Amino acid sequence: MTLQPVRGMRDFYPEDMRKREWLFSVWREASLLYGFEPYDAPVVENLDLLKRKAGEEIAEQLYSFKDKSGREIALRAEMTPSLARMIASRQNSIAMPAKWYAIAQCFRYERMTKGRKREHYQWNADILGVDDVSAETEIISLLIFALKKMGFGTEDVVVRINSRKIIEDILRKVGVPSELFSQTMIVIDKKDKIPSEELKRMLGEVPLKGDIPERLLDAVEKCSEGGAREFLGDGENIRQMDDLIENLGDFSEFVSFDVSVVRGLSYYTGIVFEAFGKRAGKRAIAGGGRYASLLEKIGGAPLSGVGFGFGDVVILDVLEESEKIPFTGINLDYYIIPYSKDYLSYAFSIARQIRNKGFSADIDFKCRKVKTALSDGSKKNALFCVMIFPEEHKDGRIKLKNMKTKEEKTLSAAEFFDSSIST
Amino acid sequence: MTLQPVRGMRDFYPEDMRKREWLFSVWREASLLYGFEPYDAPVVENLDLLKRKAGEEIAEQLYSFKDKSGREIALRAEMTPSLARMIASRQNSIAMPAKWYAIAQCFRYERMTKGRKREHYQWNADILGVDDVSAETEIISLLIFALKKMGFGTEDVVVRINSRKIIEDILRKVGVPSELFSQTMIVIDKKDKIPSEELKRMLGEVPLKGDIPERLLDAVEKCSEGGAREFLGDGENIRQMDDLIENLGDFSEFVSFDVSVVRGLSYYTGIVFEAFGKRAGKRAIAGGGRYASLLEKIGGAPLSGVGFGFGDVVILDVLEESEKIPFTGINLDYYIIPYSKDYLSYAFSIARQIRNKGFSADIDFKCRKVKTALSDGSKKNALFCVMIFPEEHKDGRIKLKNMKTKEEKTLSAAEFFDSSIST
Repeated sequence: MTLQPVRGMRDFYPEDMRKREWLFSVWREASLLYGFEPYDAPVVENLDLLKRKAGEEIAEQLYSFKDKSGREIALRAEMTPSLARMIASRQNSIAMPAKWYAIAQCFRYERMTKGRKREHYQWNADILGVDDVSAETEIISLLIFALKKMGFGTEDVVVRINSRKIIEDILRKVGVPSELFSQTMIVIDKKDKIPSEELKRMLGEVPLKGDIPERLLDAVEKCSEGGAREFLGDGENIRQMDDLIENLGDFSEFVSFDVSVVRGLSYYTGIVFEAFGKRAGKRAIAGGGRYASLLEKIGGAPLSGVGFGFGDVVILDVLEESEKIPFTGINLDYYIIPYSKDYLSYAFSIARQIRNKGFSADIDFKCRKVKTALSDGSKKNALFCVMIFPEEHKDGRIKLKNMKTKEEKTLSAAEFFDSSIST
Repeated sequence: MTLQPVRGMRDFYPEDMRKREWLFSVWREASLLYGFEPYDAPVVENLDLLKRKAGEEIAEQLYSFKDKSGREIALRAEMTPSLARMIASRQNSIAMPAKWYAIAQCFRYERMTKGRKREHYQWNADILGVDDVSAETEIISLLIFALKKMGFGTEDVVVRINSRKIIEDILRKVGVPSELFSQTMIVIDKKDKIPSEELKRMLGEVPLKGDIPERLLDAVEKCSEGGAREFLGDGENIRQMDDLIENLGDFSEFVSFDVSVVRGLSYYTGIVFEAFGKRAGKRAIAGGGRYASLLEKIGGAPLSGVGFGFGDVVILDVLEESEKIPFTGINLDYYIIPYSKDYLSYAFSIARQIRNKGFSADIDFKCRKVKTALSDGSKKNALFCVMIFPEEHKDGRIKLKNMKTKEEKTLSAAEFFDSSIST
């Protein structure tokens, strides 16, 4: 039988798990400093719920099945349907605004490429019940705060911001018929990945007539480079974008207004944004935006929200590439080395006291030769080794080795616990 | 459509999620202080793997299904098969002994009763590659350490310990034929739940002949009450139990030798144990033991291990009943109250600086009346409220309210960041 995990899914051996835990701790700490509250929902949801929000593509990629009583259920592909369900089911009692976050594993059966697996963990943060741009400010600030905590600067990442309303104003202004807005935006979304000649051809196929494709691309370019107010005039949507940038204060240096950012189709209704890696790889790291009618689809009252999803796969790649993951080896305060099995019981007693004081300890259960045991302690990055040897033990003493300075000293157990271990 | 989660599965609203996070942090901290390394595997595994280890009962309760390429997969019902697979696939490179832990969600489609849902999180800790009783000492110590950290004393919980080898010695000694050992143990396992007359009848049905049922129950009683050495003589299995108790030192006050503890059938081969709530409810909280041939079943080399599983459902009930869960409301350092929308941008700047210093902050985005906003800050358990009002703001000052003492003071932003916020 195979010893591999299910295709497209990941084992986390300790080394990888410590990296993941470090990443999660950054997400969690940022969320808490920003006053977000944690939530979670079952990874298995009713298929009906997941399909209602999902676009056609996601619906086809669901890991769906029937349980033993015939219920149609599926592994979630994203967290938003569960969030909507939880909020809708207690809409009268949840205080608004609500700021919620989750770190949730999500599943999609899709073709695997670099940065895409069939499962990933996704940090989700959402603010519900705030209609104005302060919610966007807060959520984008949270995203930038977390990126900074990971060690990224403006040379590493950019948060591209757009507004669905601004791109719609532009489409209207250059003469795109409103029934072609969606298809046109799908093409615009690919702007950074496709040469402009090819893009023009694709816009012609939408079909946009005459010189509309060319004028549209010019307008997108011009507006992204600071000409939006000039091109569109001083409307509400432009002013909203200005407010957002102003609110972001010194975080705005991470931000770039980019009319080509669309972020999928059926869901967002206002400001959209994505964090993007600027170095080798150049990949979207996280994305989100304003949504207006999340709850109505499942029978809740209207409630506007803004949120983002931030997956673990791409960011761990990018962090690895840019060597920004801090040391994540095993960390041990004390490694206890009993001379032989006769000293094991005493070793356990020393370990128990060390751990009661809040320090980590491990024991060489195999009672190997001192040299081997010390080298083992070194592999576990122990700060100190505690040696329990016959000579010292008969006088109630232990040998303590500082693994960094290599200094050794002999001291009584009382001395050890009174002084050494508290410093 | 229903707004409930899938039947038998749990939503975690923030209040519940904070309780869960507190529990997980106890588990995690205990694991790290004991030198265990974290790991994880996909919640979806190949069906074949899960069936190989599972008993018939578990196999029937698996949430199994086919993925879109026809692979037979299932949600894990326990973590051990994944652990075995991960270890077996790198058996040559993983340093032994290995001390690994995971906090893993597991799924079983079964009838729901109090303390049983269709999903739960389980803390798993395992020590692999140590054959002697020091592994049992370490794993049981870890379990007791965690229970103590949760605030339990010897009046709340007991860890019952037995050895499969000792119960087998007893069965042999009272004349149970070896081919009836398994069935006999199934009955013995129920000893605490069933009156002894009924137990005797069930043993007779195994079938144990003549006075064997009576002699067996007497022997179990006698051995559990300290008479095992007298009854069985001074053999290796009794000495091993003595070593274990001695190694546990002052933790042994939590431990009770109990010959009726069996912990299922097909899996454990040596010492077995379970943590049990002594108060109202009286339920098994965690259980584990020594296993000899985990890896061989899936093609690995022989490797002995000892481990336990500790679910979140029962313990959260028990903790709740005994009021041992610490305060898990939202915790906020600063709640910022802008007088009106005109002061939001400044509020964001204050919040950004507070968060950069590692304190949590939230903002009243709605700019409500001061009284309402202060009451909101109070609901969020904010330590301080920062009020940005026109009067003070024009001189570059803010008003700071200590929510505990109700004391208010007016100070410049510089004073606030230099002094107040660092204390």
